[in-house]
Amino acid sequence: MPEETVPTIQAEPLKDFCVQVFQKLDIPEEDARITSDVLVTADLRGINSHGVARLRRYVNGLRDGMMLARPKTEVLTETPVTAMIDAGGGLGQPVSYRAMEKAIQKAQEYGAGFVTVRNSNHFGISGYYAMMALEHDCIGISMTNAAVLVAPTFGRDAILGTNPIAVAAPAGNERPFVLDMSTSTVSRGKLEVYDRQEKPIPLGWATDETGTPTTEAGRVLENFKQRAGGGLLPLGGAGELLRGYKGYGLALWVDVFCAILSGAAYANLVYPKTPDGKPLPSNIGHFFGAWRVDAFRPVDEFKTAMDDLQARLKSAPKVEGETRIYIHGEKEYEEAERNSRDGISLNPKVAADLQAIGKEMGVEYDL
Amino acid sequence: MPEETVPTIQAEPLKDFCVQVFQKLDIPEEDARITSDVLVTADLRGINSHGVARLRRYVNGLRDGMMLARPKTEVLTETPVTAMIDAGGGLGQPVSYRAMEKAIQKAQEYGAGFVTVRNSNHFGISGYYAMMALEHDCIGISMTNAAVLVAPTFGRDAILGTNPIAVAAPAGNERPFVLDMSTSTVSRGKLEVYDRQEKPIPLGWATDETGTPTTEAGRVLENFKQRAGGGLLPLGGAGELLRGYKGYGLALWVDVFCAILSGAAYANLVYPKTPDGKPLPSNIGHFFGAWRVDAFRPVDEFKTAMDDLQARLKSAPKVEGETRIYIHGEKEYEEAERNSRDGISLNPKVAADLQAIGKEMGVEYDL
Repeated sequence: MPEETVPTIQAEPLKDFCVQVFQKLDIPEEDARITSDVLVTADLRGINSHGVARLRRYVNGLRDGMMLARPKTEVLTETPVTAMIDAGGGLGQPVSYRAMEKAIQKAQEYGAGFVTVRNSNHFGISGYYAMMALEHDCIGISMTNAAVLVAPTFGRDAILGTNPIAVAAPAGNERPFVLDMSTSTVSRGKLEVYDRQEKPIPLGWATDETGTPTTEAGRVLENFKQRAGGGLLPLGGAGELLRGYKGYGLALWVDVFCAILSGAAYANLVYPKTPDGKPLPSNIGHFFGAWRVDAFRPVDEFKTAMDDLQARLKSAPKVEGETRIYIHGEKEYEEAERNSRDGISLNPKVAADLQAIGKEMGVEYDL
Repeated sequence: MPEETVPTIQAEPLKDFCVQVFQKLDIPEEDARITSDVLVTADLRGINSHGVARLRRYVNGLRDGMMLARPKTEVLTETPVTAMIDAGGGLGQPVSYRAMEKAIQKAQEYGAGFVTVRNSNHFGISGYYAMMALEHDCIGISMTNAAVLVAPTFGRDAILGTNPIAVAAPAGNERPFVLDMSTSTVSRGKLEVYDRQEKPIPLGWATDETGTPTTEAGRVLENFKQRAGGGLLPLGGAGELLRGYKGYGLALWVDVFCAILSGAAYANLVYPKTPDGKPLPSNIGHFFGAWRVDAFRPVDEFKTAMDDLQARLKSAPKVEGETRIYIHGEKEYEEAERNSRDGISLNPKVAADLQAIGKEMGVEYDL
């Protein structure tokens, strides 16, 4: 076994470990289960950056009071097909799960449903919530704003988040279409990987403190720490040449739906700090929605067309040297099948951190 | 006056000319007015590629029966907040205008409304319909699929359209946010401009017949004509380096909402041809939606936050050499103000073509 890997871990015991940790932090059992499922689902789908690697951040957030274990969650506005929820500063996952459930219920009754959430926290992978719609033969959408990392077109400094959008639509024999993308070219996590490997990043991923595209991942990361300027670039890169303003526009769209519509913090107001640099609750906002397929067209016709759309793409001629054209979500479904069977491979640093958390919390880590 | 420009033309007489042309082609007056308004609004906003320059295509489409002047338009499915309309092969603009009106009505009554359209044609600028929501204090969305021009990630040939997405949200003292973007890096029109100027296109815009990024606009355009392979690249460019699969995913999203949900043609099924190469009706699909702002949050709070979001972006530090950070729609609003005052500058080729259309149709062109 190479040094870098640890024995694989099955999803269920990993989830149970997280549930126990959350319960030790006074999170109600159901909320602990939801949050743990969102985290481990990310690891199953191969999105390790958003999996149990983040448990430490939630533990710290709950310990230092930036996230509340038993928040007062309130529905502040509601119409037949819309709602706005104040999450009361709790974990992002439980309120997001319930907000998406509400959107789906509204879609089942009326054809479509939408819920915005304010005063929340990091909710994990966006795709999780959009995918909740699938088993109800609904199309799901999910968005969130996020920590300030992305510079707008012609802007020197980061003002927006990586603001992901997820859309999930059911298919018949084929797997569902699951688009789950940040609206920046890459995330900070990708820069960290390149930095550790001392590899130059491609121009178009990030800018230095003058706002100029750079190949130095370490410099960008250090600038983030020092709040020295620069940032990740929106999808499409710097300036107008490759249409970075489109990615910037998508990020703004997400901010409007998640934060302006809900009353959450937006742009560089998220994850605020006191004048002397102490962190305050993040006041992140989310947006969830569902459309019932048969409110437009019979489900079987829709699914047949989804299958045919996928078949047309997959069977199309490839670029030389390439063997597959992927549908969004396909790689993650395959990864989830593999990891459900063979177990999840955790980065040894992450595994060590989980072990440390277990020790601190008095939860046995025996995975 | 330089050779390349013609005297400017005021919007109203230009619209009247188009209305008369459409009426000569048996289009009912109201439909003619709607279609002409969509076209001239594009010219006013500086999006000349989608303005009266396209009149010839509509004239030809109506003459050769690919578009019907008096289609049988039917609402085939309807719920409180959704509908699916068969456009009967008519012009895209009138049915899109009415579909968006229906979405807004549903939003006014229930909080949100969504309408898909099938069996339609090119509808002009996507932003037009999204912007219809603004005066009702709604957020609008509008999408359409389109002619086959875009290659999916790892695909050699074009299978998808430039599939634009438009989102419009009202503001207070500031101008509304109007994102109106194709999901490809650029449109075919941009390649035509570079080709005429004999300028190399940036790598990341399009691929040659082997699926390799190319700088030769003429080669790409010729390949389109010959159906020889290659295509425009999705936002994010070729392969995975700059995340072209995100633009490809956005294009698929649009196809799902516009065509799979409505029963329109999707992927490379749009603008079909007979086996011997004769064109058939395009069977384009659209998607329209509206969310009532106060179904989530009081309108004045929303607008105040929209203004502040814009102020934060505009006042942020700029990249060296840049003087402005733009909000989406801002340039187009400024252009529309200028052109409403000073008149629209038409490309001389377009002006000559309008003149020719006037002659053919027996409509006086006196602009």
